[in-house]
Amino acid sequence: MNERYDIAIIGSGPAGLSAALNASIRNKKFIVFGTKEISNKLVKAHKVNNYLGFYGKSGKEIRDEFAKHLEEMNIEITEEKINNIYAMGEYFSLMANDKVYEATTIILATGVNFGKLLKGEEEFLGKGVGYCATCDAPLYRDKVVTIVAYNKHEEAEANFIASIASKVYYVPMYKEEVEVDSSIEIVNDIPLEIKGETLVSKLVLKNREIETDGIFILRDSISPGQLVPGLELDGSHVEVDRSMKTNIEGCFAAGDIVGAPYQYIKAAGEGNIAALSAVAYLDKQKRKSA
Amino acid sequence: MNERYDIAIIGSGPAGLSAALNASIRNKKFIVFGTKEISNKLVKAHKVNNYLGFYGKSGKEIRDEFAKHLEEMNIEITEEKINNIYAMGEYFSLMANDKVYEATTIILATGVNFGKLLKGEEEFLGKGVGYCATCDAPLYRDKVVTIVAYNKHEEAEANFIASIASKVYYVPMYKEEVEVDSSIEIVNDIPLEIKGETLVSKLVLKNREIETDGIFILRDSISPGQLVPGLELDGSHVEVDRSMKTNIEGCFAAGDIVGAPYQYIKAAGEGNIAALSAVAYLDKQKRKSA
Ligand SMILES: Cc1cc2nc3c(=O)[nH]c(=O)nc-3n(C[C@H](O)[C@H](O)[C@H](O)COP(=O)(O)OP(=O)(O)OC[C@H]3O[C@@H](n4cnc5c(N)ncnc54)[C@H](O)[C@@H]3O)c2cc1C
Ligand SMILES: Cc1cc2nc3c(=O)[nH]c(=O)nc-3n(C[C@H](O)[C@H](O)[C@H](O)COP(=O)(O)OP(=O)(O)OC[C@H]3O[C@@H](n4cnc5c(N)ncnc54)[C@H](O)[C@@H]3O)c2cc1C
Repeated sequence: MNERYDIAIIGSGPAGLSAALNASIRNKKFIVFGTKEISNKLVKAHKVNNYLGFYGKSGKEIRDEFAKHLEEMNIEITEEKINNIYAMGEYFSLMANDKVYEATTIILATGVNFGKLLKGEEEFLGKGVGYCATCDAPLYRDKVVTIVAYNKHEEAEANFIASIASKVYYVPMYKEEVEVDSSIEIVNDIPLEIKGETLVSKLVLKNREIETDGIFILRDSISPGQLVPGLELDGSHVEVDRSMKTNIEGCFAAGDIVGAPYQYIKAAGEGNIAALSAVAYLDKQKRKSA
Repeated sequence: MNERYDIAIIGSGPAGLSAALNASIRNKKFIVFGTKEISNKLVKAHKVNNYLGFYGKSGKEIRDEFAKHLEEMNIEITEEKINNIYAMGEYFSLMANDKVYEATTIILATGVNFGKLLKGEEEFLGKGVGYCATCDAPLYRDKVVTIVAYNKHEEAEANFIASIASKVYYVPMYKEEVEVDSSIEIVNDIPLEIKGETLVSKLVLKNREIETDGIFILRDSISPGQLVPGLELDGSHVEVDRSMKTNIEGCFAAGDIVGAPYQYIKAAGEGNIAALSAVAYLDKQKRKSA
């Protein structure tokens, strides 16, 4: 049986970390998924003046202060990308690349991704379009797979798929040099549209078309509706009330993912609220079952 | 004519200060009312572990970091207590002891006061019960006035009233030694109830009763409904939406005043949102009048 966490926090930006501090102080069994770099967005800021208590620090310096805070409290970030979360009734199942985690409550703190969906992407989602190559690989044994990758670290995914599929096309959307197995065909082009009948049949790029059975689009973050099926959205953001509750029992959200303004301290403040709401929910569940 | 501010921030705790940083960054003409000590509540904390970026600091140390941040940005706190705020349509009038300030928008960040109202206090408010002795002093020329004071610095108010009223009773609710003019009668007792017909006629204390024409109750903070007449409340808190808007156009609120959890970073996050909402409101007003 899987270990069951009280609280799983998805995202390691200011929202997720602030939630983690409070989960820890409240003695809950929790896990934080994200990157030890903390947040890509955080480190991009040149000078931050509106995080009360820090003046004129760069995003990197603030990242270091956050990291120090975690270290002092022995909080570790689990470097794992969560691809899908299913509400199972009494708990949630969180799908990482090759592992499943379980938690009674979840806090979504994945930030926002300003990337636009490809034409046809939503229509063919689950019908040949996927976001986790490793998870769905078995479906593509001896088939043709195309990977649109927004980050160099997806190259490992491509290599793994290449060991199963009959042919892999790799469309890199990043600037670094591409280093993949020689069996993989690198396509330096701009994807425009996904086409097919009931299932995906091709990817249209600016200068060519590729016949393909499956297309994986690997972005740094997954849209919240795709991450948690059934989640109520308000445009592209997660709909929450002032206690950071979503429409799904036991599921909370905080930070950029719940809407503007996109700001560190707003994200951190909401992470604090979300964690305390999750704690209150857990305590209520406990009383019910007692 | 009075100088008109774009934004008046009432309260100098984490919510008010975070709002001030953002008002400053957005180049608005703003003023922050409160105390240079920043927040009584802040300095009371022994050790704070859940303000992301600061670990194991005392409330006083965090207060010092906040003060440094303000100093770097040349933000000054105006040491003035706001007693009443009136919505005048296009702007707000803020009543300090002997001054009136004007602002197009206001951000209420006064924290919460856990003090209970006296029996009869609400009923007789404006009918002999008041919260600002200096403001209402002219009403009590040659009359009997009772002051219930929760803070030593109210002694100055008592002395001023004593120069106008025929008799002043002073009920100190604090532990420090009382030092008031010798004409003032100090009553060391516990106030229980305010009585009268249409107007106040007496204050009932645990061990005696005082016949009086007016009663001033001077607490550190004023309940939000008394501070801003017409403000919609949710219990004892100010009702706001997720953009920190209240029911009154141009009036925003943040921090403990809008409800639990009572936490620094939650207050600071909300202050950030409230300021940006006020900025958006100001920009819209400007476009309208252009
Ligand atoms: C250049 C730039 C400058 C900025 N300057 C300022 C500024 O001066 N002041 C200010 O207040 N704000 C500023 N911001 C905005 C600020 O960065 C964001 O508001 C803030 O980072 C939001 O925090 P968050 O926790 O919601 O999300 P993020 O910081 O985006 O963190 C989300 C984290 O979740 C991880 N994640 C996402 N999906 C998954 C998944 N499925 N599984 C596991 N982990 C996942 C990500 O890798 C990331 O680490 C700036 C942003 C940029 C881009
Ligand atoms: C002993 C103690 C320990 C705590 N420990 C923690 C902790 O570890 N972590 C945590 O997150 N939270 C803690 N808190 C809670 C935290 O102090 C509050 O949530 C936070 O201070 C709220 O900020 P605020 O800006 O809303 O209001 P406040 O900090 O209460 O500030 C309000 C300010 O407004 C001023 N003011 C009020 N009325 C007026 C007026 N009419 N005119 C002008 N100025 C006015 C006041 O003088 C004050 O300076 C603790 C509280 C206490 C009492």
